[in-house]
Amino acid sequence: MSKPSTPARVTPDLGLAASLFDRLGRETRQGRGIVRDSYGAGEQAAHDLVRGVAENVGLEISVDAIGNLMMTLPGRDRSVPRILIGSHLDSVPQGGNYDGAAGVVAGLSAVSALRQADVAPPCDVSVMAIRAEESAWFDIAYLGSGAVFGLLDPGCLSIRRSDNGRSLESTLLERGFDPGAIRERRRLLDPSRIRAYLELHIEQGPTLTARGLPAAVVTGIRGCKRFRNARCTGSYAHSGAVNRPFRHDAVAATVALLHHLESVWIREEAAGADLVFTSGELYTDPAMHGPSKIAGETRFVLDLRSVSDATMDLVADEARAAAARIGAEYRVNFDLGSTSDSPPAVMDARLRARLMSLLEQPFEMPSGAGHDAAVFAKVGIPTAMIFVRNDFGSHNPDEAMAIEDFAIGTQALLRLLLDFPL
Amino acid sequence: MSKPSTPARVTPDLGLAASLFDRLGRETRQGRGIVRDSYGAGEQAAHDLVRGVAENVGLEISVDAIGNLMMTLPGRDRSVPRILIGSHLDSVPQGGNYDGAAGVVAGLSAVSALRQADVAPPCDVSVMAIRAEESAWFDIAYLGSGAVFGLLDPGCLSIRRSDNGRSLESTLLERGFDPGAIRERRRLLDPSRIRAYLELHIEQGPTLTARGLPAAVVTGIRGCKRFRNARCTGSYAHSGAVNRPFRHDAVAATVALLHHLESVWIREEAAGADLVFTSGELYTDPAMHGPSKIAGETRFVLDLRSVSDATMDLVADEARAAAARIGAEYRVNFDLGSTSDSPPAVMDARLRARLMSLLEQPFEMPSGAGHDAAVFAKVGIPTAMIFVRNDFGSHNPDEAMAIEDFAIGTQALLRLLLDFPL
Repeated sequence: MSKPSTPARVTPDLGLAASLFDRLGRETRQGRGIVRDSYGAGEQAAHDLVRGVAENVGLEISVDAIGNLMMTLPGRDRSVPRILIGSHLDSVPQGGNYDGAAGVVAGLSAVSALRQADVAPPCDVSVMAIRAEESAWFDIAYLGSGAVFGLLDPGCLSIRRSDNGRSLESTLLERGFDPGAIRERRRLLDPSRIRAYLELHIEQGPTLTARGLPAAVVTGIRGCKRFRNARCTGSYAHSGAVNRPFRHDAVAATVALLHHLESVWIREEAAGADLVFTSGELYTDPAMHGPSKIAGETRFVLDLRSVSDATMDLVADEARAAAARIGAEYRVNFDLGSTSDSPPAVMDARLRARLMSLLEQPFEMPSGAGHDAAVFAKVGIPTAMIFVRNDFGSHNPDEAMAIEDFAIGTQALLRLLLDFPL
Repeated sequence: MSKPSTPARVTPDLGLAASLFDRLGRETRQGRGIVRDSYGAGEQAAHDLVRGVAENVGLEISVDAIGNLMMTLPGRDRSVPRILIGSHLDSVPQGGNYDGAAGVVAGLSAVSALRQADVAPPCDVSVMAIRAEESAWFDIAYLGSGAVFGLLDPGCLSIRRSDNGRSLESTLLERGFDPGAIRERRRLLDPSRIRAYLELHIEQGPTLTARGLPAAVVTGIRGCKRFRNARCTGSYAHSGAVNRPFRHDAVAATVALLHHLESVWIREEAAGADLVFTSGELYTDPAMHGPSKIAGETRFVLDLRSVSDATMDLVADEARAAAARIGAEYRVNFDLGSTSDSPPAVMDARLRARLMSLLEQPFEMPSGAGHDAAVFAKVGIPTAMIFVRNDFGSHNPDEAMAIEDFAIGTQALLRLLLDFPL
């Protein structure tokens, strides 16, 4: 029987972390970038590496029906619900070494430290290496974590991998996994047996770098309300021969709409709301447009994100109203189309507060990108996330996380483990 | 010897006009639209028809080295410089029956009326059917009229027709014309022997229809200053993960620039300047953009047109200054590139004034599109244009000009002929 916790003296196993990051980078790099393809050779190499390290640490190993890897440090009371520390091991094509992997390495370096200090946590702690989070390979959000809770549409088994065209079903079979788990919506973990899900992830934006902070507690994962197929229809005409009052200029009208929505964004920001607004696709029709033609059509995307559903609803309503008003003013027709919506995921208030108290420079921020944590929150598991400062953004070969910042985020996780039950 | 003019009693030969429009439409229609391809079967059919009518009227016929057709009514004094009434007989692919042809038919119906009334004009009047004005076939502006004055770069002989790929040189040879005239920049007409060039053309925009006016005198042909290859470079990033102060959003910056230039346009308009501003091509990069990405690049066109070089220069300067200011504000880089410039062509003040006095509802307006008249003005020939109301724009099968409106425009031309020397 292990002795009671002595948290003040336990610090993350940074030797394990540095060595594991190094080996992950060397074994899954192709050219400049990292390629850990979902259910492919790259992701599998990462799983094999991580599993080997976990075995060395002396963790209990299991793999579920669709390949998620569970590495468990037994707790003082094995009968109570356990704590998960997880993230994914796959990457986008030509990605970086830290997106996803940092969360798994953080879990291992925390439990390795506990093991070495002979400190048993109050309950089982499982480090979870989740499959296939990056939808770049199979176009499904949260494939690995969604399947754990039977949340996936079984039709997704016919989705083909973007690079080699093989279906998810045959890919799972080739790797020795069981597509039946997805087909039958089988639950591979019982949410009531999970006390908390904790995820450390590199920040995918520049906020922490700009503020000079090593880490942050995540308030929530922004939801998204997206007009994916917005369109403005006017009339093509000669750019020289038609004066302003007679134009049906789709570009001018779209510019007016986007400019108005930027002002709405600035207003909401000033009022303290969480919001980002992006039009990342905007184009006239290359088959019809011309340098001396007034444009008769534009197509564009409006992407709204917030931790608040109410904020997204409000701005979407304003977008519709502005499209009607500006459409009339410019004698064009806007059809914004329907929205695709993903709800925000709120992080657990008590876990957030505890993590904040564990940071020397406490700072909270929303996550703009999605994470597996959103799935665990959705099924009702108390969920928390820590962001670690990362230069140059994510999903590219230049991801740069300092081990010192990683240590600060992981130390907070480790301390949180020992505080249970909160 | 003809008797002196009795202008009050002479009116255009509308029978000739109506019959000629009808035959032109029937003989050069393909499906819904008109196809009078430059130096092709369609344009040649129109030339043959027009020439036959001119022969019936009793005009002197000549064809120059590159196929322009001259149909001359002798004047009382054959030794003085002559008056030209011209326009082109080609059309865009699937164009309408009136763009170009109306000017040639107007000339014929005017001189036919003089012939029938046995009224001789003060000098020779030549109706000129000009070749290849529409650059849709050979990508050269003002091919037929430019060649008349040796203005074309001889390299244009290797330009290929857009539909069949045959070079201009071999096309001219096939039709029995002489590419040497272009190669040697031979002048086929002496500007000092032309007293005036007059052109009637359908309006290519909606102004006259909107104002309920049958015809207008053209003040000038708008020049064009065009940033053909403008570009904004920012950084691609995750649309959810990067807040406003950290973005390098090429779409947001381009929207701000275009919105500002619209306000400059409105300001100039209010101050009485002649200006149109168009961005008819605007696009993010389809290989790089995405619905959840901040756009790292846009490409776009800025097209400025005015009868005033000073106005175009002023707005182009404002565009450059705004691009620098907005680029800094949005942390992106604008490269507007160089401009391609075509100067405005000013119509002759005395001819304009005389034409205005001949309209019952006098109205003046600029021409936004280019016309052969610009070439005649450029070589110093006093030049005037009349626009005739036309519904549904030009360069499409729906061009609609009423013969009553055509009669009003042609009557003004006819009266002007008889007023020479002004």
